[in-house]
Amino acid sequence: MTTTILGYAAPSATASLAPFHFNRRATRTDDVVIEILYCGVCHSDLHTARNDWHDTVYPAVPGHEIIGKVLSVGSKVSRFKAGDHVGVGCMVDSCQHCQPCQQGHEQYCEEFPTLTYNARDRQDQTLTYGGYSEQIVVSEKFVLNMPEGLDLAGAAPLLCAGITTWSPLRHWKVGSHSKVAVIGLGGLGHMGLKLAKALGAEVTLFTRSPGKEDDARRLGADHVVLSGDEQQMLSVRGQFDLIIDTVPYVHDLNPYLPTLNISGTLVLVGYLGPLDPFLNSAPLVLGRKSVAGSLIGGIAETQELLDFCGKHGITSDIETIDMQNINDAYERMLKSDVKYRFVIDMSTLKK
Amino acid sequence: MTTTILGYAAPSATASLAPFHFNRRATRTDDVVIEILYCGVCHSDLHTARNDWHDTVYPAVPGHEIIGKVLSVGSKVSRFKAGDHVGVGCMVDSCQHCQPCQQGHEQYCEEFPTLTYNARDRQDQTLTYGGYSEQIVVSEKFVLNMPEGLDLAGAAPLLCAGITTWSPLRHWKVGSHSKVAVIGLGGLGHMGLKLAKALGAEVTLFTRSPGKEDDARRLGADHVVLSGDEQQMLSVRGQFDLIIDTVPYVHDLNPYLPTLNISGTLVLVGYLGPLDPFLNSAPLVLGRKSVAGSLIGGIAETQELLDFCGKHGITSDIETIDMQNINDAYERMLKSDVKYRFVIDMSTLKK
Repeated sequence: MTTTILGYAAPSATASLAPFHFNRRATRTDDVVIEILYCGVCHSDLHTARNDWHDTVYPAVPGHEIIGKVLSVGSKVSRFKAGDHVGVGCMVDSCQHCQPCQQGHEQYCEEFPTLTYNARDRQDQTLTYGGYSEQIVVSEKFVLNMPEGLDLAGAAPLLCAGITTWSPLRHWKVGSHSKVAVIGLGGLGHMGLKLAKALGAEVTLFTRSPGKEDDARRLGADHVVLSGDEQQMLSVRGQFDLIIDTVPYVHDLNPYLPTLNISGTLVLVGYLGPLDPFLNSAPLVLGRKSVAGSLIGGIAETQELLDFCGKHGITSDIETIDMQNINDAYERMLKSDVKYRFVIDMSTLKK
Repeated sequence: MTTTILGYAAPSATASLAPFHFNRRATRTDDVVIEILYCGVCHSDLHTARNDWHDTVYPAVPGHEIIGKVLSVGSKVSRFKAGDHVGVGCMVDSCQHCQPCQQGHEQYCEEFPTLTYNARDRQDQTLTYGGYSEQIVVSEKFVLNMPEGLDLAGAAPLLCAGITTWSPLRHWKVGSHSKVAVIGLGGLGHMGLKLAKALGAEVTLFTRSPGKEDDARRLGADHVVLSGDEQQMLSVRGQFDLIIDTVPYVHDLNPYLPTLNISGTLVLVGYLGPLDPFLNSAPLVLGRKSVAGSLIGGIAETQELLDFCGKHGITSDIETIDMQNINDAYERMLKSDVKYRFVIDMSTLKK
């Protein structure tokens, strides 16, 4: 039996988000029914609401940084019970049989993972609706266990902003021996600083804007480098084992390559598109350097992140908003006027 | 006491190479004096002779794939004695104290290594002259030990073409579990096929030209893919852990990225310059793929390669030429008319 619930949806690319009633599917045997408590606001939500990627099906209910409480579970669910605090991130399903899925890299599923919103359910082809809503129904495999003691609102952005920076930190084996830099201090960047620092690395923030020094240091940066200042860029020549580039628009990567150490990697996590201006291969060849990309993270890896954050008391720096203020929040997000992530208190949905 | 010897030099960017008498330095305590038996002909020799890199000092004596026999050694030399067969590659010195040097990556020396020709000696600032000559004097640290039983002429190209493909194969941990592709079947590419195959990998050649299948298979390729054929490119989608791109001129990397496996790397070893057309970051992000570069290899790594080749009986496929035919060889090299490397028989120098 489907359940009719309330959410907030974009009715079209140009209209504001507004209340929207829709059906959640009847519970399958492997499903967990979750009451949503908090939902983080990601740039992808805005891109989808406004059809920036030309694939939005309306009405669209965004939200993929979901924290909730289990209401009920299907008959075959073994890992969760009613009352548990859980998380749901960017994916709610994947093929489960390709090599990446088998290796726990569901984000790189050869058939592409089923995204939490604006995607089609693999079994009944219904549209997926995200976390700006009362409830969500998700297969147990894609439900994360929330560690005790972590602030639930602050934990919501771990499900996307957190895992997106955690996955490359782990893949490139960052630890106490590492020098890591993060480009950009937004939702992703501030998590990158916190997580790299907690892993024991020496951490540098690259930013275009002066005045971020105090905040960056509070968040974990040991050093702050103005990327537009040639002298400062020269002073970090050959330093970094890993640079996590969180910039979400086209930008010149060439100035950062000389700051990589021999065999170092610059990994893009925020930008899909042409590397304009031309990337010059000379610094790559002359220092065995790499330019790479990375996409969110797998489910096991996300659980590892949550457990790590539980142990280290790490959450996102957030501004909590009411559901009704989502349209203002989008406008402020476009101006980077948020420190550092909006999280919707879903108890406000029915106000 | 310096020794006056005969070599072949480019007198200017536009003149043919011709006999040239010059002095080799007096032997230092750590030096090995080597009679040159064979010298491979690398594209870099031609670039230097013709001042393509705008830094040639004339007369220029090229040659950095050197095989010889020790004539005498300085008082502090312990690893070599008169009569030993030895090799000298692209470098004859480096700072020895920076981190890359300490780690055996002299090719990435922070002060830049001293190249075998067209560089300045670190102690007396004299110009270095390469292997198109009777003798060379090289510090023991940069002299390689030739394993018994390897054909000396065929071994010469191991010192540049060989190590340039070996180093990325080892850095990216290629073994019997690996799928490796090589782009381009020239001096570097044919060594890439042989070495990847000997390491146990499943090996594919990417080529633009039909008709190379038989040769490629003989050299170690399990598969040959025409890079201009869309169907063939689709058939190897998501296959390769490592692609070694040996193409020495600007070319589009984008068609190769989909053929990388998740977390796979395309490594450039032959081209320095802008990646034109724009590299698209989407395949990198959506599959955690990397575009990297790699430069020759360190001294210890080169010794490892020579020992490996000695054990597996691997040499380069060469065409031996007389010293007097070097100018014709350059012209043929420009037309890719060589299978797969010219090697000068230095006994012909005094003909």
